[in-house]
Amino acid sequence: MKNFTKTNIGNEGRTELHDKLALTGAEVSINQLPAGASVPFVHSHKNNEEIYAILSGSGKAIIDGEEIALAAGDWLKIAPSAKRQFFASNDTAIAYICIQVKENSLGGFTAEDAVIY
Amino acid sequence: MKNFTKTNIGNEGRTELHDKLALTGAEVSINQLPAGASVPFVHSHKNNEEIYAILSGSGKAIIDGEEIALAAGDWLKIAPSAKRQFFASNDTAIAYICIQVKENSLGGFTAEDAVIY
Repeated sequence: MKNFTKTNIGNEGRTELHDKLALTGAEVSINQLPAGASVPFVHSHKNNEEIYAILSGSGKAIIDGEEIALAAGDWLKIAPSAKRQFFASNDTAIAYICIQVKENSLGGFTAEDAVIY
Repeated sequence: MKNFTKTNIGNEGRTELHDKLALTGAEVSINQLPAGASVPFVHSHKNNEEIYAILSGSGKAIIDGEEIALAAGDWLKIAPSAKRQFFASNDTAIAYICIQVKENSLGGFTAEDAVIY
């Protein structure tokens, strides 16, 4: 049994990695919305914090009624209870990563969790 | 207290988001290695699974002695105990995201964890 898994993401509209990579601490999706499109619903989470990274293009998020402009290079953390919806710009598509992790699940990290050889 | 945090990542060599975004379920870093460079040590983890995404460029990882070619669009999950080291190609830089999460920390996700409005 190998200690790693690997996949390659091309130009798919949405790809979910949990099952593809046998993730145990996160779900990760890579998403594209065409110009003028939006995620067709508002949602929140019961237990999971979400981390979003804008890879390309532009758009906006509405989080608890507040409008946030989004462009490539932006990273967002959203608390579980926040009501959120994502939109591409009217004239530009948006591509983004969404990372779902359990709120407060991280213990030590980086130097505290690493073993250096 | 807002239910979200936001930052923008430009062309920095390495940026860590845990403190910038007040993450509680992950550490995320955005990294660049110039052509010919490598992370200067081999490391493993005590408790954390790592998920890597190659954003641009190319290089390789050596994981438990196995060499894996890396290019933009590749995603990897690496188990905590695996010994790993990352390298840019000799003639090309590499940019990548590293997500650290506690192994086996994720409960329900996506439809199971979401509340739709």
